[in-house]
Amino acid sequence: MKSNRRNFIASAAIAGGAVSTLGLSSCKGSAKKPSYESRYAALDEALKQPVLKRKLFPDPIIIESLELLVDRNNCLYRVRSKDGAEGISVGHSIFAASSYPMVKRILSGFFVGEDARDLDQMIFNATERTVKRQGIPLNLHVAGIEFAILDMLGTIANKPAGELIGDVINPEVSIYLGHRLRELRDLEPEESLELMYQDAIKTEARAVKLRAGRGDNLATDIDNAPGRTEKLIRLAREKFGDDFHLMIDGNGSYSVKEAIRIGRILEEYNYTFYEEPIPWDWYEEQKIVERAMTIPMAGGEEEFGIHGFRYLIGNEVFQILQPDLFYFGGMTRTMKVARMVEAAGLKVTPHISRGGLGFLYMLHMVAVCPAAYEFHEFKLFEARDANGTLIPHDTKAGPFESGGGKIKAPKGSGLGVVIDPDYIKTHKPYTA
Amino acid sequence: MKSNRRNFIASAAIAGGAVSTLGLSSCKGSAKKPSYESRYAALDEALKQPVLKRKLFPDPIIIESLELLVDRNNCLYRVRSKDGAEGISVGHSIFAASSYPMVKRILSGFFVGEDARDLDQMIFNATERTVKRQGIPLNLHVAGIEFAILDMLGTIANKPAGELIGDVINPEVSIYLGHRLRELRDLEPEESLELMYQDAIKTEARAVKLRAGRGDNLATDIDNAPGRTEKLIRLAREKFGDDFHLMIDGNGSYSVKEAIRIGRILEEYNYTFYEEPIPWDWYEEQKIVERAMTIPMAGGEEEFGIHGFRYLIGNEVFQILQPDLFYFGGMTRTMKVARMVEAAGLKVTPHISRGGLGFLYMLHMVAVCPAAYEFHEFKLFEARDANGTLIPHDTKAGPFESGGGKIKAPKGSGLGVVIDPDYIKTHKPYTA
Repeated sequence: MKSNRRNFIASAAIAGGAVSTLGLSSCKGSAKKPSYESRYAALDEALKQPVLKRKLFPDPIIIESLELLVDRNNCLYRVRSKDGAEGISVGHSIFAASSYPMVKRILSGFFVGEDARDLDQMIFNATERTVKRQGIPLNLHVAGIEFAILDMLGTIANKPAGELIGDVINPEVSIYLGHRLRELRDLEPEESLELMYQDAIKTEARAVKLRAGRGDNLATDIDNAPGRTEKLIRLAREKFGDDFHLMIDGNGSYSVKEAIRIGRILEEYNYTFYEEPIPWDWYEEQKIVERAMTIPMAGGEEEFGIHGFRYLIGNEVFQILQPDLFYFGGMTRTMKVARMVEAAGLKVTPHISRGGLGFLYMLHMVAVCPAAYEFHEFKLFEARDANGTLIPHDTKAGPFESGGGKIKAPKGSGLGVVIDPDYIKTHKPYTA
Repeated sequence: MKSNRRNFIASAAIAGGAVSTLGLSSCKGSAKKPSYESRYAALDEALKQPVLKRKLFPDPIIIESLELLVDRNNCLYRVRSKDGAEGISVGHSIFAASSYPMVKRILSGFFVGEDARDLDQMIFNATERTVKRQGIPLNLHVAGIEFAILDMLGTIANKPAGELIGDVINPEVSIYLGHRLRELRDLEPEESLELMYQDAIKTEARAVKLRAGRGDNLATDIDNAPGRTEKLIRLAREKFGDDFHLMIDGNGSYSVKEAIRIGRILEEYNYTFYEEPIPWDWYEEQKIVERAMTIPMAGGEEEFGIHGFRYLIGNEVFQILQPDLFYFGGMTRTMKVARMVEAAGLKVTPHISRGGLGFLYMLHMVAVCPAAYEFHEFKLFEARDANGTLIPHDTKAGPFESGGGKIKAPKGSGLGVVIDPDYIKTHKPYTA
């Protein structure tokens, strides 16, 4: 992808003389950086476009209540309209419990009493006007609330959630396997690769994502075990063969120098993309790495602000942008990023954590996502909630169809699933 | 300050051709940007130095318990050592209640059972290794915990909290009045200035900070009322006289264009610094504004990461850095920023919210802060907690002495105050 990227973002961006001082031969620092306006004009135009298809809803839909329902670590979001329409979603499977009080204390006021057709504006207010409260802990509740509202609106319009914010352009979603994070770092390379190999056979996936380094966000010059990552890279190519797509995620393990050293090996073994080798908020350093590499670079999972993505896209810090559907605050915001990505000629693939109904939100989003990357993160259909309980649910329009490493976009109105009422009842309203 | 800033950070940084496209005559874009290494070498060296003075404590001080004590919106942090030493602090007066569960669910494990002498490392783990949970809502609890630990350690060493992390270099702290945020935006300019004027007479302060724009983080090209901010700027200079120090805070109100237009007026009226005219995370755009101005620029209040400050300092995005003692996660982290600031030849003045014991933490920090700016934010001695209750407390070494717009650094061990036990008892352990 890097070789045919569009020209309006010149490759000579930010890092200036930095790369040459690292002794790299691929320095492209001589070209002049494009002007501020030329880097952002198309992105700002994309940001101005509304997301929710208001015309699907001729009449006001006033949100009468927003409930956070909690059972130990797990949370559900339920919205009801004045006319009795209802929507429900399952929260993030890992981190939601640390910031429950934000729902009532910060967010409720942005939604209750408002017209659900003003979703774009409500989400903007909840994420961009909450200065000093911003971040992933807030955004993941915004996402949960938005998913519930989209469930309600989809039921009203009799359309799947994704089709409320876009047209289906990817009726089938090609997956890459992104799970087994811990096994790939804790087990011997051979053992962890065998597990992934078996998963690939079962799912017929044509792509898997491995893990590089310690994944500890410490940005060091060393690996978790001498030679370990290099061994994993080489063995995986041997095991999966030359035609298989192999990606790798550093989870912020490396310094710039080590990131580039590992990147060279990935290029040698023809890897498909290289994700977040250095800590997520090291934008300037990530650009230095990006300029030194020919392998496409992926990132953005921890980014929580629209302006942050605008920068990452406008300066082509990554070729593949990975807004997380929870961490970034939902589908309408992710659509805004996707539109900027499209305007810049780059690619987007939403990140999603394992567990809960993450796969469902991912499928709804990717189905309507412009500039979607060829493969999308999939961590199995295993819908365990934050307490480890399998979420009992039925699909409204038959089981998810998958085969050949592809999953069909969900049908059925709203989020397309019906959650067992008895399961919901174990959750009590949380009002602190 | 800007005219004699050190040369190692060249003025021709980031923005490249951007300024000229805004039609500004002060473009400095032709000089080459300094290399990555030259911008950060001194800062990275500063970051490597330990903060807590370990040698004050010959024996281990194991943290046996960490309690979050809550009364409605208010929180206290209490730590106890295995040997029975105790420390207590009062939490942030506005935002702590939205993220209480983070204390037990994310933070406790980094502190309980550890040796308090490893404070630097514990704080690092709590703020830099908590990826996906990072931000102000987490940091303000880290700060509360750190203040309680410093209170305990100060009691053990019989030294004020600040002197555990630095030597007293500012025994008197000159203040600027930074309160009346709402009055300065909601009342008529004449009326709000009269209130500030009376406060300045009472405190004998030689500096006040006004408010520009709507303070809504919306980055628009317009002001809250046509001509309002301009009127405030002009009237304040007339009222306070030519020798008085006037600052102004935009709280992210403006676009780049409007920020520069207002900045020109501030320069005309000889204002002392210009704070955060555009949203806090618009680093690149803030640098464009900075390059266009001769007035020193201030910011950093919302920044929650060490790496973010390293960038802001290394690229001289601001001349005056304002880490918030709560939002940035306490005094040891603020000391790290202050050392980077010192290495860069810039200035630092910690930000602090109104209420609680904010003024106390500010005084402890500034007393030992290298590269401290001439004036420091002060929002009166009014110690109201998050429920609006005045916090009943005595100082261990006599009342705070203030006069001539200066306050003496706190004496007495630890945080230097004793909080009424009956007040503490209204707070119950929070374990969710």
